[in-house]
Amino acid sequence: MEISKRGRTVQASPIRKFKPYADAALKAGVKVYFLNIGDPDIPTPKPILDAVRSFNDPILSYGPAQGFLELREAIAAYFGGYGISLTADNVIITNGGSEAILLAFATVADSGDEIIIPEPFYTNYNGYASLADLKVVPLTLQVEDGYRLPPAAEFEAKITPRTRAIVLCSPNNPTGSVYSHDELRRVVEIAVKHDLFLIGDEVYKEFIYDGLKHMSLMEFPEVRDRTIVVDSISKRFSCCGARIGAAITRNEAVYGAMLRFAQARLCPPSIEQKAAIAAYKMGMGYFESVRREYERRRDVLYEGLAAIPGIVVRKPQGAFYMSVRLPIKDAEKFVLFMLNDFRLDNATVMVAPEAGFYATPGKGRDEVRIAYVLKEEDIRRSLVILKAGLEEYKGRAEA
Amino acid sequence: MEISKRGRTVQASPIRKFKPYADAALKAGVKVYFLNIGDPDIPTPKPILDAVRSFNDPILSYGPAQGFLELREAIAAYFGGYGISLTADNVIITNGGSEAILLAFATVADSGDEIIIPEPFYTNYNGYASLADLKVVPLTLQVEDGYRLPPAAEFEAKITPRTRAIVLCSPNNPTGSVYSHDELRRVVEIAVKHDLFLIGDEVYKEFIYDGLKHMSLMEFPEVRDRTIVVDSISKRFSCCGARIGAAITRNEAVYGAMLRFAQARLCPPSIEQKAAIAAYKMGMGYFESVRREYERRRDVLYEGLAAIPGIVVRKPQGAFYMSVRLPIKDAEKFVLFMLNDFRLDNATVMVAPEAGFYATPGKGRDEVRIAYVLKEEDIRRSLVILKAGLEEYKGRAEA
Repeated sequence: MEISKRGRTVQASPIRKFKPYADAALKAGVKVYFLNIGDPDIPTPKPILDAVRSFNDPILSYGPAQGFLELREAIAAYFGGYGISLTADNVIITNGGSEAILLAFATVADSGDEIIIPEPFYTNYNGYASLADLKVVPLTLQVEDGYRLPPAAEFEAKITPRTRAIVLCSPNNPTGSVYSHDELRRVVEIAVKHDLFLIGDEVYKEFIYDGLKHMSLMEFPEVRDRTIVVDSISKRFSCCGARIGAAITRNEAVYGAMLRFAQARLCPPSIEQKAAIAAYKMGMGYFESVRREYERRRDVLYEGLAAIPGIVVRKPQGAFYMSVRLPIKDAEKFVLFMLNDFRLDNATVMVAPEAGFYATPGKGRDEVRIAYVLKEEDIRRSLVILKAGLEEYKGRAEA
Repeated sequence: MEISKRGRTVQASPIRKFKPYADAALKAGVKVYFLNIGDPDIPTPKPILDAVRSFNDPILSYGPAQGFLELREAIAAYFGGYGISLTADNVIITNGGSEAILLAFATVADSGDEIIIPEPFYTNYNGYASLADLKVVPLTLQVEDGYRLPPAAEFEAKITPRTRAIVLCSPNNPTGSVYSHDELRRVVEIAVKHDLFLIGDEVYKEFIYDGLKHMSLMEFPEVRDRTIVVDSISKRFSCCGARIGAAITRNEAVYGAMLRFAQARLCPPSIEQKAAIAAYKMGMGYFESVRREYERRRDVLYEGLAAIPGIVVRKPQGAFYMSVRLPIKDAEKFVLFMLNDFRLDNATVMVAPEAGFYATPGKGRDEVRIAYVLKEEDIRRSLVILKAGLEEYKGRAEA
């Protein structure tokens, strides 16, 4: 009696698998700075919490499989504010952006089919690829050139008769890079030429710095019917625990299939959907101060990292992550060292080893993802601890 | 550019696909009695709603992938009250029982593998079998003998080298049957003999009548390592919109794989987990009145249906569903007739056509599932409408 092959091979989340060691440190009274996970410390806006607290239906009953109409309309209107024309019937509310990824994967590809993803990529694509039995075909990007997308020929070299889609995340998790109009156009043209779907993970689109503007795959009319966008309120409104996301498409066949898959799980959580409606009604002004806050944190983190000898980092322009190369061989061992063995004034730092963000075996072992979701002074303190930790670690014989 | 085969073939929920017609009737001012879906009209208990309303974390942040420890402990203690010994580490909190089904399917079986399910079965197993690319092998039960499980030889005739699991739902959705100790033992012995997993969907275990006691697959020590139980608070505490369920297993390899799959979606909703903790702290007394209420409704519905000429029904002993054969050829057409064309004092009834609860093509076309989730007077009124509708429908030329 053996479990399934996919069950045996599905990746443990590199963001979460070291959590037990962090918990042990916490239990021992150590202060741990969590830079491993994109769980913002910015308070959840009051209108969201107020909507939760004022829930007064007598029965917490099922909603529609595609989500409440009022929420889908609010999301369509929100994208309208970005010049992207949608209707409520283009939107399926999901259990976090996570479920939108699963619905998209299962709708564009069958078992054994391939999806091309530039790596490093959001590690949880791996879990859903295992679940849906897809093969992730990675296209390796480089820290030295800021994780820009490669020329079309490098994408095309990865395309086989089983390729069904390209997955693009911009602003990117884990690299923070924001793809330019030219980079996106390159991928759009490949999708048209090779008859592929595009899955756009754009959940960080509000978090974009240096005066840049986010561009969505939905803004390219040539791929109007080829595009599925993954959206989420988790980061946008600092409410990761709400588990409200959306799968967005204008392709009716894709929408229909995603909805039928979604019907099996009945509906997304009702209370948080009401909270999400309140969130979208806050208006765009909310993001200004949040964006400024993250931009300042990015600058602090970037400058601090760039000043640590041996670290390779380029300044990213979006999301709230940086991917950096450390002067070590094995980031998993370094993370364990930091959690188990290293303390500076009884504090330590947790970052996410990045090998799990690559599909190519052996890649990214000397890289980590750092999330700047803590306030400036905590980031400054984390930098001091990280630097001291690296120095002490180097002094040890690394296997 | 075509969508995936699974996307093209995944079933539309027979519980939900006629909802647009019901919505049209509602919009036209018609009173619709919804007996198609198991969405109870019993108010959500106050401690659950109070927990929601008193949520006062400043940030609605991620929880653990396996769910809050306090909730997992509460569930373990709850099962302890049924004489089933569990620890928190046997429990993964899921997005409704639905997600537990998906985790179980993907963990025991790979693409193309087979799972045996007595039919009619909870239709949403189909959606997850499509998603996970499993083949559902049905074992047809009969309304005339109250949907009892067949002799072992009939199960064994369905077993192939690709069979990975048997799925049992008791009390059953959609039939309401409650499997006896002998029936369960039969399946347990088959699982041991043929090295199969058992997936037990036991979300209705509190709703059991005529003084019967629920027996869980977890009570058979022979299949301690083979069993995954799907649990949910949706029906138990009248809070279907909360989307809190659980996957329960004592097999560490199964638990590990389910957890790794679950890590990809980060966590279940945080607020409803806190509400669920409050629910489990209410104690077992809560169920007494609820059980009596459902038992009375069952009696009213059963007696009413048995008195309608041409309807074949046996008295079920659990859950809040009945599967019945109607004196018609095509229940989908009859449901459409009731929603679009038939009114009695400007009211009509919606039931769920049962063909979608069968995997065998052509089966169940003259059957419907009726949920007794409305209060007694509504059930009585629904019976009058249903009877009149059947009479008028018979008067029409049925295709």
